[in-house]
Amino acid sequence: MSRTARTPGPGISLAELPLRPELVGAEPYGAPQLDVPVRLNTNENPYPPSARARAHMAREVERAAGSINRYPDREALALRADLAAYLGFGLDSSNIWVANGSNEVMTHILQAFGGPGRTVLSFTPTYSMYPEYARNTHTRYVTAPRREDHTLDAELVTAAVAEHRPDVLLITTPNNPTGTLTPVKVIEEVCERVDCLVVVDEAYQEFTEVPEDSSLALLARFGRLIVTRTMSKAFALAGGRVGYLAAAPAVVDACRIVRLPYHMSAQTQAIARVALAHRGEMLAQVQALREECQGMQEWMRRAGLEVVPSQSNFILFGRFADRHGVWQEILDAGVLVREVGPEGFLRLNAGTPDEMRAFREAIGPILARPGVLVR
Amino acid sequence: MSRTARTPGPGISLAELPLRPELVGAEPYGAPQLDVPVRLNTNENPYPPSARARAHMAREVERAAGSINRYPDREALALRADLAAYLGFGLDSSNIWVANGSNEVMTHILQAFGGPGRTVLSFTPTYSMYPEYARNTHTRYVTAPRREDHTLDAELVTAAVAEHRPDVLLITTPNNPTGTLTPVKVIEEVCERVDCLVVVDEAYQEFTEVPEDSSLALLARFGRLIVTRTMSKAFALAGGRVGYLAAAPAVVDACRIVRLPYHMSAQTQAIARVALAHRGEMLAQVQALREECQGMQEWMRRAGLEVVPSQSNFILFGRFADRHGVWQEILDAGVLVREVGPEGFLRLNAGTPDEMRAFREAIGPILARPGVLVR
Repeated sequence: MSRTARTPGPGISLAELPLRPELVGAEPYGAPQLDVPVRLNTNENPYPPSARARAHMAREVERAAGSINRYPDREALALRADLAAYLGFGLDSSNIWVANGSNEVMTHILQAFGGPGRTVLSFTPTYSMYPEYARNTHTRYVTAPRREDHTLDAELVTAAVAEHRPDVLLITTPNNPTGTLTPVKVIEEVCERVDCLVVVDEAYQEFTEVPEDSSLALLARFGRLIVTRTMSKAFALAGGRVGYLAAAPAVVDACRIVRLPYHMSAQTQAIARVALAHRGEMLAQVQALREECQGMQEWMRRAGLEVVPSQSNFILFGRFADRHGVWQEILDAGVLVREVGPEGFLRLNAGTPDEMRAFREAIGPILARPGVLVR
Repeated sequence: MSRTARTPGPGISLAELPLRPELVGAEPYGAPQLDVPVRLNTNENPYPPSARARAHMAREVERAAGSINRYPDREALALRADLAAYLGFGLDSSNIWVANGSNEVMTHILQAFGGPGRTVLSFTPTYSMYPEYARNTHTRYVTAPRREDHTLDAELVTAAVAEHRPDVLLITTPNNPTGTLTPVKVIEEVCERVDCLVVVDEAYQEFTEVPEDSSLALLARFGRLIVTRTMSKAFALAGGRVGYLAAAPAVVDACRIVRLPYHMSAQTQAIARVALAHRGEMLAQVQALREECQGMQEWMRRAGLEVVPSQSNFILFGRFADRHGVWQEILDAGVLVREVGPEGFLRLNAGTPDEMRAFREAIGPILARPGVLVR
């Protein structure tokens, strides 16, 4: 009864497997993981937690491991309460949903409110993961361009909503990869004018000039507004994988339906709570990085570069005749930046003063050559 | 321009949100989280890691926290190599995919090979999470009944495949909630006869009489075979959230396309590797639990209960005229079991000797009453 021709062995190729048609030819997402002395390509925080915070994490994980044979708290209630307390604005744990990175948070939102036959709208250039969340959840992904200077205003957004009729509207502020802020006043006007869910991705909010000036303030008025955040950046926890959202309790209930049960491990809940307990230390470094980022923008402008004004911990700069060539030259000098965003531009994130110096030294000789920049 | 009627505030109800129609009325999945002295309801391992293993976990997490500001290894290569070495059968890291619990592994499989217009087939009674994975990935979920004694054979499986034409076939051995083993010989015959992907869920394999007698042995012949495992049970890591699969490298490549980048946190990779390093300690307890489970089955039979022969760390037993009433009475005596599976049955997992004694004392008086059992 064996049909040998039909039972290929372990050397089977992806083409011989019944992969979904829309995934054929797709590559796993992610920036190149290169072993380079100075990595300024993924908007990471260059400062690890202090020795004191790390020791505290170890203690809490050791404690959690004492019952790690048991499933973790499925609701992650203590962590959600801590996150609510951190955010303020009168929020409590019923307003908070938490998951393994903001990409899982965004996936939960699209699983609950997107999916087949539904549409999510965002504004380009923007974060390159959004189309992947949409693809994974079978949500139609549509985009509208931002203004020439990468800003958004209520007229542009509502016109795009009228055109595309999205179920979920996604506004990123500060935007990635441009660093552009969208004022809360604009979000407010949008919420007043549209009926769809409005997701405001504030992943880099802590790096803005006035972090308290957040769309969180609008949650008291708009039940269809969702504000997403991450601990990857300001809390230096990219490796810890903790993202969260704040919204009406009914939005949290919707996420609870689609989440995989016990999605937050005991160790992740423990580590996130320790990081929040050490927030003073973490947020002091955010202030230093903000200043580093502003200083670098000034240096770049003086060096003749075109710089998109950034309210984040990263900068989109150019405009290069051959951005890939420049990216490679900077890499050859030991500094990894990101080749992303509009044609001719590169993105760099704020690092330590030493890392910023290494970048300036790497790009200096390149900028001295005629023809490198285009206007 | 404000349209107050259209902008409900934070008191918005789930019914007022654009939840996907198939989710309306759904409840978040999960067993009741009750605060009870003896919990034997979720097939957890009752033995936490030793103090030595916990201290080792704490050290490794403290070390990992030294670079937790950076994204973790996206490929989790060291952990995958450790898992391959644990499994044996000549597997290496290219054969292994790992995720946050086997439920995320199963989701990746269905995201890659299931989805809209595709079908997954499993055999009832079986694990109650499967329909949720299917629902979340928009895969059609169909079932065929097992034999009266809950076993499977190649004839039954291939007839169901011929009838339902699934893209993914899902066989659980030992099956949950029945504990029924499906011999490797049956899986082999099925693989020889069907063209679809065959997923063998071996979550409880380490608790079987001969754990080495695994479908892993068939991977050398069948490129469309996937064997899934978990560290939740044998490795006492339910709180750690680590599941994995072994398959042809092309299957792993497919999972890499659909996974969210950096899905495995630095701390989870560290803790899983420590647990694997202490496997001797962990697997010694598995042996004790297997014996506890076999002893309990004998006791139950002597007590007049109908017991489904289990090759796992749990037992399906009955048959009760009023299983909910019995469940409640056992709970009132401080022991939580699971109300799941065929009508009239309850499920209990092997615990410590003290926990098994508590269960016997809880159910003893109930069984002494006439009319409690039905034949």
